[in-house]
Amino acid sequence: MAEAESNPDSRNAYTLDSVREALVRQEDTIIFSLIERAKFPLNSHTYDQNYISIPGFCGSLVEFIVKNTEATQAKAGRYKSPEENPFFPENLLPSMVPYYPFSKMLHPTAALVNINKHIWKIYFDELLPLFAASGDDGSYAQTAASDLSLLQAISRRIHYGKFVAEVKYRESPADYEPAIRAQDQEAMMKLLTFESVEEMVRKRVEKKAMVFGQQVSLDSDENKGNKYKVDLSLVSRLYKQWVIPLIPSLVMVQSSKSIVAHAAVKVYKE
Amino acid sequence: MAEAESNPDSRNAYTLDSVREALVRQEDTIIFSLIERAKFPLNSHTYDQNYISIPGFCGSLVEFIVKNTEATQAKAGRYKSPEENPFFPENLLPSMVPYYPFSKMLHPTAALVNINKHIWKIYFDELLPLFAASGDDGSYAQTAASDLSLLQAISRRIHYGKFVAEVKYRESPADYEPAIRAQDQEAMMKLLTFESVEEMVRKRVEKKAMVFGQQVSLDSDENKGNKYKVDLSLVSRLYKQWVIPLIPSLVMVQSSKSIVAHAAVKVYKE
Repeated sequence: MAEAESNPDSRNAYTLDSVREALVRQEDTIIFSLIERAKFPLNSHTYDQNYISIPGFCGSLVEFIVKNTEATQAKAGRYKSPEENPFFPENLLPSMVPYYPFSKMLHPTAALVNINKHIWKIYFDELLPLFAASGDDGSYAQTAASDLSLLQAISRRIHYGKFVAEVKYRESPADYEPAIRAQDQEAMMKLLTFESVEEMVRKRVEKKAMVFGQQVSLDSDENKGNKYKVDLSLVSRLYKQWVIPLIPSLVMVQSSKSIVAHAAVKVYKE
Repeated sequence: MAEAESNPDSRNAYTLDSVREALVRQEDTIIFSLIERAKFPLNSHTYDQNYISIPGFCGSLVEFIVKNTEATQAKAGRYKSPEENPFFPENLLPSMVPYYPFSKMLHPTAALVNINKHIWKIYFDELLPLFAASGDDGSYAQTAASDLSLLQAISRRIHYGKFVAEVKYRESPADYEPAIRAQDQEAMMKLLTFESVEEMVRKRVEKKAMVFGQQVSLDSDENKGNKYKVDLSLVSRLYKQWVIPLIPSLVMVQSSKSIVAHAAVKVYKE
């Protein structure tokens, strides 16, 4: 029986260990999704604002897929989870699913932080042109669905930084209180991030891309030609250039503000 | 630059080589999707006919997600591709995407063969209970979306048998003509399937599950404990018990009927 890895205890506990395990597991999801998107050529019609003409809708095919899929998933309760953030939160209908006791660990200010508009822009402007091969095979809907899966995986990882920050604060609040009292974001960032850990993450992600991206055959020598399903250096670059910097520079700064708010309540109540 | 693997020449050509390459690549997608579904516990509310109450909708949460996602993807043209088959073809609106010259290689009878109702039943009745760990983490929408990705990957693979049969027939029509003229389905199946190839597929799939399902870390010895993200024997069993038998027993038989029809036209026109 496979092990359920998705926080079976999410009702209650985020610990340093569970958060670290989730981060590592999310890397696999991102790499699988990246490999799956790279299966398709660029399919530029998917992103053309003038390609489709659907009554009552204005935008590109990928916007059509993402907005409608998010609308469906919102009704099915996806965004009740504090780990999920929509790309188009405007006009989403509320969940039609009965109440579930998700963790209320995040301070309400942190729970509201959503930098998906920024992730969307970086994904389409910078990342996608690098790893999608040129070409057009007509499978625009499948391509857009594949973009959405990858975007959701990247977004989930980046926003998970909020839980990392919150857990680190809760593990040793005394370490953070001077910075919190001084509202010193730079000191807070120093406490929350470690260059050596980031370097390890980049290396691990590159190794995973090599393992998951290889052509597996029964002839064990077949991948000797180093033909991979994705460009390995790109996966490392995705983490180095976009995922890792986005976490501290956007989510963690904003989330550390909410830690400030969160902790300040405690500190000033003492 | 990554290589676009998704039939850049799908406008025209399916060859024995391109079809084989596609089958091998689809194994990766199925295993990635299986690993991603196994990330979640069973989340049985997802499949409960009485759990959600959405005005104008009657059914389980997974049916809600699949029907609505398919409706969106149908409008975006997914099912114009001869390689894609919906699970709920009833009431799907037509594509709103401009015409694309997909291959018309399949005989119209074969193009209409859709055994997704059967795949759906096997997936939920037999397969899912085997590989989803018990438990409930409240992420029903994500679980259902994950089921859909896996179902689409399995369905695509099984229905791809239609292209395999058609390509094999076209490569050497003379081999098939006696069986076609005699309408001898058993002889046709013998021509189309090979036990040794199926055995190789099962072994390769199990190897892929081991490679993609391993816990990758910078410490190369970490996976020594054989802790995998999915039960390896299950992936092999998925192919042995469900995917491979479904291809000849359902799609290929039905598709060979259409080869019969297709070839008969040619034969009798001579």
